[in-house]
Amino acid sequence: MADIQAVAKQFTDFYYTTFDTNRSALQSLYRDHSMLTWEGTPVLGASAISEKLTTLPFEKVAHKVTTFDAQPSSPTLSSLLVSVTGLLLVDDSTNALQFSQVFHLIPDGGSFYVYNDIFRLNYGA
Amino acid sequence: MADIQAVAKQFTDFYYTTFDTNRSALQSLYRDHSMLTWEGTPVLGASAISEKLTTLPFEKVAHKVTTFDAQPSSPTLSSLLVSVTGLLLVDDSTNALQFSQVFHLIPDGGSFYVYNDIFRLNYGA
Repeated sequence: MADIQAVAKQFTDFYYTTFDTNRSALQSLYRDHSMLTWEGTPVLGASAISEKLTTLPFEKVAHKVTTFDAQPSSPTLSSLLVSVTGLLLVDDSTNALQFSQVFHLIPDGGSFYVYNDIFRLNYGA
Repeated sequence: MADIQAVAKQFTDFYYTTFDTNRSALQSLYRDHSMLTWEGTPVLGASAISEKLTTLPFEKVAHKVTTFDAQPSSPTLSSLLVSVTGLLLVDDSTNALQFSQVFHLIPDGGSFYVYNDIFRLNYGA
């Protein structure tokens, strides 16, 4: 599992750093058949996913990963699931929002692309 | 996607009702190669997973699902990812805890089993 944890850490570091500094560059992580469900809204394909992510209604965002867990998602492929929980700050707000996000990463050459991506904000009781 | 949402709803209803009323019956949802990561602790196989779930340090638990999202996890299999966020109450506490959980469901005859299961409590800022 050591390799999987390392891949998951490398991926989450890259994903959230890119999200917070250069959102449009996330498009390269997705393919035409990739799926994003953002707060319940389904989006299909790298181009539409990039459009969704770059037009979210905030200018600035900062993610802080609290936990991440990874598991192999297939007995035959070196694909993996990465489940993340964390906090995010948007624009000049000082109220951190909790989020959870899951990625399904598929091997592609020496790297991985995102096949599934499900994002939710978590609201309290 | 309609069928997938229906399967996800049926699964989450069954899973959390069973968790809250008869935890030991959850074992039938897992196989020998199923994986659970519970608050960062990895557990492998139906028997060990059932042991983990039935020995959690509370007598009573009640889950309330706030959101669930589902996506197909493979272009070739009718497997699916289900991502859940919600609240849970343990024993006589009145402080609801937020949780997030992701399941990877694999078709098996006319039903599904859980291949991946990742559970986390979500703590505030």
